[in-house]
Amino acid sequence: MRIITLTTDFGTRDGYPGIMKGVILGICPQAQIVDITHEISPQQVLEGALTLARSAPYYPPNTVHIAVVDPGVGTERRPLAARLGQQYYVFPDNGLISAVLMKVEEKHQPIQIVHLNRPQYWLPNVSNVFHGRDIFAPVGAHLANGTPLSDLGTSISDPYRLELPTVEPIPNGWRGAIIHIDHFGNVATNLQAEHVQGWGTLEVRLVGQVYRVPLTRTFGENEPGKLVALIDSSGYLALCVVNGNAAARINTRLGDSIEIICKPK
Amino acid sequence: MRIITLTTDFGTRDGYPGIMKGVILGICPQAQIVDITHEISPQQVLEGALTLARSAPYYPPNTVHIAVVDPGVGTERRPLAARLGQQYYVFPDNGLISAVLMKVEEKHQPIQIVHLNRPQYWLPNVSNVFHGRDIFAPVGAHLANGTPLSDLGTSISDPYRLELPTVEPIPNGWRGAIIHIDHFGNVATNLQAEHVQGWGTLEVRLVGQVYRVPLTRTFGENEPGKLVALIDSSGYLALCVVNGNAAARINTRLGDSIEIICKPK
Amino acid sequence: MRIITLTTDFGTRDGYPGIMKGVILGICPQAQIVDITHEISPQQVLEGALTLARSAPYYPPNTVHIAVVDPGVGTERRPLAARLGQQYYVFPDNGLISAVLMKVEEKHQPIQIVHLNRPQYWLPNVSNVFHGRDIFAPVGAHLANGTPLSDLGTSISDPYRLELPTVEPIPNGWRGAIIHIDHFGNVATNLQAEHVQGWGTLEVRLVGQVYRVPLTRTFGENEPGKLVALIDSSGYLALCVVNGNAAARINTRLGDSIEIICKPK
Repeated sequence: MRIITLTTDFGTRDGYPGIMKGVILGICPQAQIVDITHEISPQQVLEGALTLARSAPYYPPNTVHIAVVDPGVGTERRPLAARLGQQYYVFPDNGLISAVLMKVEEKHQPIQIVHLNRPQYWLPNVSNVFHGRDIFAPVGAHLANGTPLSDLGTSISDPYRLELPTVEPIPNGWRGAIIHIDHFGNVATNLQAEHVQGWGTLEVRLVGQVYRVPLTRTFGENEPGKLVALIDSSGYLALCVVNGNAAARINTRLGDSIEIICKPK
Repeated sequence: MRIITLTTDFGTRDGYPGIMKGVILGICPQAQIVDITHEISPQQVLEGALTLARSAPYYPPNTVHIAVVDPGVGTERRPLAARLGQQYYVFPDNGLISAVLMKVEEKHQPIQIVHLNRPQYWLPNVSNVFHGRDIFAPVGAHLANGTPLSDLGTSISDPYRLELPTVEPIPNGWRGAIIHIDHFGNVATNLQAEHVQGWGTLEVRLVGQVYRVPLTRTFGENEPGKLVALIDSSGYLALCVVNGNAAARINTRLGDSIEIICKPK
Repeated sequence: MRIITLTTDFGTRDGYPGIMKGVILGICPQAQIVDITHEISPQQVLEGALTLARSAPYYPPNTVHIAVVDPGVGTERRPLAARLGQQYYVFPDNGLISAVLMKVEEKHQPIQIVHLNRPQYWLPNVSNVFHGRDIFAPVGAHLANGTPLSDLGTSISDPYRLELPTVEPIPNGWRGAIIHIDHFGNVATNLQAEHVQGWGTLEVRLVGQVYRVPLTRTFGENEPGKLVALIDSSGYLALCVVNGNAAARINTRLGDSIEIICKPK
């Protein structure tokens, strides 16, 4: 059995993911199809890239991840498929796998990418607006069926890459970026535990505001309503309100610059 | 293995689709259950009918589609099941399969419909308010198990039909209707490619407003923010804003009348 | 094949349930994973407990229900697993299975509960903020694989219990509580059919307002827009607006006290 995941900006209201699943099951009836999310903000490729990088590592080898956030659908942007490390990815060539790719390169894992240019692996009629259904779903299903990646298209080595947020040193601290604002209102930066090792209180500068927040270990050891910083489940430094919503208190957006300064306790 | 899809207005918050899946798996443990959508607007049978007609064709033969948008639950409206073309449908008799039925009739495919009146195929206790759980889910599971349609009830030939929107000629153009406003804000009409073959610029009359929009092939070949018309993934003429939300710019609702006039480029 | 259900407050946008499914499938590739809901209001344990009690009974024996509404994650609150009646539950020790537990005790069904304290059944690295991924998902997958409950931890008999709403007699009626406000706006109380047997018109006292509503059998036998009371699909007395939204008309919240008085027709 092979697992296929879906990560899109399609929403769940119109049945678009359901249509992709029909196509997949028509080609690979044994597929175990799992939704990662269909709620990437419309056309926000970076958000999709970060979500995929956060989720894919928890899947077993040979999982096929189909990712579709695709403002360039129907233009010359290439449809691609790749084996990155031990998993497969099917996606438009707009940077959607940039964050996964960077991690795989850091670990010196194997990388193989193909330009999907063999229409015999697609639906017979390809629209100009829904390659998720017409190209990516059928290609993912063929991969799950065991079709070799190299059969699906021509090898390439120049996938489009997004510029991913970096962490830079500043006096007594770091400048990073907001990389995730979740359903609970937790606001994650791209700083990691190593950047704030042993720190007690943080001064946070974000969108013209300054916050003093304690670095804590868990939500539950603080009083409800308190703004704290902690290392989140992806290993990133996040701003959180205990039993509350930090994003509702802090004015910020995905990609905003943030400065974190070490303060004496 | 048999595939069962669900299309409802139940939402996903309360666990109602999860309850239906528990019932299905208790009867047919091998079912591959797929959500088409649970976000049909409450009690909007036409919206459900159009969603089902857009999605079902992408499923393999013998798929069982359970559809429940059911304001008349508990009254005399009949529970039905049908084989339409190569697939099965289980639904309340309120027109929810009207659009699928029309397509199947146009293609002269086989049609068999039964009135579900054999309680031995239902849950033992049938409520007056949740036939999705008590009748439609168990009947769908029995179909997936291979129970013949004719075992489940008495043959009928008079299913309730909704009046579906039509396309009528007007001077230099067509009068149709809005049949879908999707998650991205794309506004689909019931006109098809054949109606606007070779046209360049369209004059669109909708809810007292007039728009001049170019007929284009893809989103990506236009500048972001531009209002365009294109043939969508279901083959219908749609109004779209490139990387934006047409429904937020155009005041319209499902079912509204629309006039499309051919203009010189 | 074993069924695993998920009930959480994680939402579906960030991919958190998708991450749990990756973990589960890595341990138990044959799992049939079903979402009950991921839309429990953040940190609302009582809402989660009531949702689980409403849904779980419709699943077959040996289903594994993973439930995570977990404001105390990372503190001393214990992770637990249980066999309650014929099903398994995996959950934080904060009362999330109180309502299921009460039903099982009323029926004198078998109860076995363990404190999950054997890390060999968890992910290798356990965060302080996402035990859904790190403890509950892997433990649920091991249960689905057939690992005995007693292997997973030490037997306990003192799970935390929420105070669940009760029904008390008052002159000519009952005092209960609001236990569910659903997607359709139906407002359910904890009164059951037996409490209003033979009653015709109800006087309802709720949040300082008084409503006179007929007790009816179905939605469809009343005119649209009418406020009625009926026995809902879980067997509870609910206030509903025919083809409309009672919660939009009645000012109330989960847990509010309500009084129901019998009136002559």
